[in-house]
Amino acid sequence: MRDVGILGFGMIKWGELWDKALRDLCVEAALNCFDDAGTDRVDSIAVGSMSSGLFTGQEHISSLVADYLGKPYTPAIRVESACASGGLAVRNAFLEVASGMSDYALAIGVEKMTDVSGGGATYALATAADQENEAFHGVTFPGLYAMMAKAHMNRYGTTREQLAAVAVKNHKNGSSNPHAQFPFPVTIEQVASSVMIADPLRLLDCSPITDGAAAILLAPLDEVKKLTDRPPVWISGVGLATDTIALSQRRDLLDLEAVSYASSRALEMAGKSIKDIDFAEVHDCFTIAELLVMEAMGIVEKGHSGAAVLDGYTAIDGKFPINPSGGLKSKGHPVGATGVAQICEITAQLRGDGGDRQVKDARVGLAQNMGGSGGSCVVHILEVK
Amino acid sequence: MRDVGILGFGMIKWGELWDKALRDLCVEAALNCFDDAGTDRVDSIAVGSMSSGLFTGQEHISSLVADYLGKPYTPAIRVESACASGGLAVRNAFLEVASGMSDYALAIGVEKMTDVSGGGATYALATAADQENEAFHGVTFPGLYAMMAKAHMNRYGTTREQLAAVAVKNHKNGSSNPHAQFPFPVTIEQVASSVMIADPLRLLDCSPITDGAAAILLAPLDEVKKLTDRPPVWISGVGLATDTIALSQRRDLLDLEAVSYASSRALEMAGKSIKDIDFAEVHDCFTIAELLVMEAMGIVEKGHSGAAVLDGYTAIDGKFPINPSGGLKSKGHPVGATGVAQICEITAQLRGDGGDRQVKDARVGLAQNMGGSGGSCVVHILEVK
Repeated sequence: MRDVGILGFGMIKWGELWDKALRDLCVEAALNCFDDAGTDRVDSIAVGSMSSGLFTGQEHISSLVADYLGKPYTPAIRVESACASGGLAVRNAFLEVASGMSDYALAIGVEKMTDVSGGGATYALATAADQENEAFHGVTFPGLYAMMAKAHMNRYGTTREQLAAVAVKNHKNGSSNPHAQFPFPVTIEQVASSVMIADPLRLLDCSPITDGAAAILLAPLDEVKKLTDRPPVWISGVGLATDTIALSQRRDLLDLEAVSYASSRALEMAGKSIKDIDFAEVHDCFTIAELLVMEAMGIVEKGHSGAAVLDGYTAIDGKFPINPSGGLKSKGHPVGATGVAQICEITAQLRGDGGDRQVKDARVGLAQNMGGSGGSCVVHILEVK
Repeated sequence: MRDVGILGFGMIKWGELWDKALRDLCVEAALNCFDDAGTDRVDSIAVGSMSSGLFTGQEHISSLVADYLGKPYTPAIRVESACASGGLAVRNAFLEVASGMSDYALAIGVEKMTDVSGGGATYALATAADQENEAFHGVTFPGLYAMMAKAHMNRYGTTREQLAAVAVKNHKNGSSNPHAQFPFPVTIEQVASSVMIADPLRLLDCSPITDGAAAILLAPLDEVKKLTDRPPVWISGVGLATDTIALSQRRDLLDLEAVSYASSRALEMAGKSIKDIDFAEVHDCFTIAELLVMEAMGIVEKGHSGAAVLDGYTAIDGKFPINPSGGLKSKGHPVGATGVAQICEITAQLRGDGGDRQVKDARVGLAQNMGGSGGSCVVHILEVK
């Protein structure tokens, strides 16, 4: 397999974008990506979207995007694994370049969630859970993650304050992210007194409903080195794993095994251990999710995640910064776009372009993107040469 | 890239399968595939499905299928490009093996279409068209293909009888396919007098609504040769292309350019021309589609396809047999499964296991799978060593 580098990335301002259709979001992010890359050459396109069908009544968006980008006849596919769809798009573009099938592979992540026909955003999102054993019976994702939060509190003594500390940290980071949907700080008191969604999770424990897109352009690393003067960022590890999508079928409610498998596979491919990682973007769809992911990847021992966050271990100036972008909590969570946006943030950080939220001495970053209640996970390791 | 062979394939009987859920269809096809392959080793899974969300309220089916196959933690992704989703799943499994990311890659195509919540099957299928410019205004696929049929009749003098000849040929072939939904012959008179759907297309010009799945297991060709005594079938060419999904945006209503690009890319990769192909499985979602595809791939000159079919040129004992399986018309069209089933049929034919529908001296076969009104197309070339 060829080494694969990141030639460019493109973000747009996320939020409730009532005046933009799904195709507009994709085009805007891709054009920003072409500007950053200094080229608009594209040999293939992978679009990650969780449910363009249920959200917007539009499938077949890979061809739609190729057309609206002015790239007719270009090979294009859509990939999906619920909220891990964006990470899958990156992995697919990686495979295209690594295998030699494409030289320039564009990955776009997108979701248009605020202008929903049919059963609404909550119904659409719940199709990432087991329809027959979970969703049909009324369980939605706040409910599923609330059960995990309760279990974590019961087993390890995790506190309301520790959960809130995740939101506080991520909103602080996101405050300096110009693309974030909610770029403002929150306090522990604000999180702990926000409206109850599913006990113990409150509104500010939950990532929002967002319209957004993100794009990256991959190319052989040698080509990236030739074309730009910037420090070349490359993908040294890719890991993908699945688990039961029904939470009730897991061996342990608190073991996100797909996350453990995906991260260890990515680290093995990169020839690294978790101790070699300088910082990470992780899938904080709910505050409890960030804690569970930290434990599943071995960043801290089981049961120690809440205290670590409260102590600043994962702050930008901490020992293991997590979600310098603001994470899903502050940046927003257009589900199919999230995994691509993580790669954009890591690329910016590794180039030293993190601005006010720059992680010091960032050389190796990890992106962890997750589907459903942990039924799938994609992990990428990025390094700067 | 490594050479990629087909280790096994699995079909199931297609039809209105009210007692089987989407996950059951996948498992049944995959188990048949494992039986055929003589192994159940799977390093990664690619599931092709057009709209499991709109048809069954279930996204995230890649993880669901890995779980129900007893393959937890296995990397799995879903791919989609409308009715070309099955072909994409094969292409993705091919990329996994060719790149070295996986040794044993399972491709499953599936659609569960008869037990639909929400807007019904016609609404779900119409999301493969441009929602904003076509579907929203009431155009459905029979309507889109009817416009192409009218244009073909006007420009080339194609007749009602010639359109019907496609259905007659395919139902004749499908009569000996034990997996076909409608394994019975029809006459030109029956097609021409069946109920009108969208002038000039009648019921028997249209492929049906079907529940079904199909599976293939890919592995490095060297491994396939080692593991079986059968003549080893391998994939020598893969081509993917897109076009506008809105029919009105094409340069010519009768040029399926995605088909032309995908087939010429696949042929180039295989080092072949269309004259080297012994037979093909093509995407006859409507009778007119088979005619347009024949012309787009250069099997006959433009305007000559109707006469060619009526003259028996594409019959099993003709000069260029098309759809020995019965095609979408007779075999059924569970949209995400179709592209995988085409590969199953070609593998059986190349092994000499075609039974009553065996194509004589079949050494090189082509599979052409198409999305929407031609907005995307995947072509595979298979050969026997």
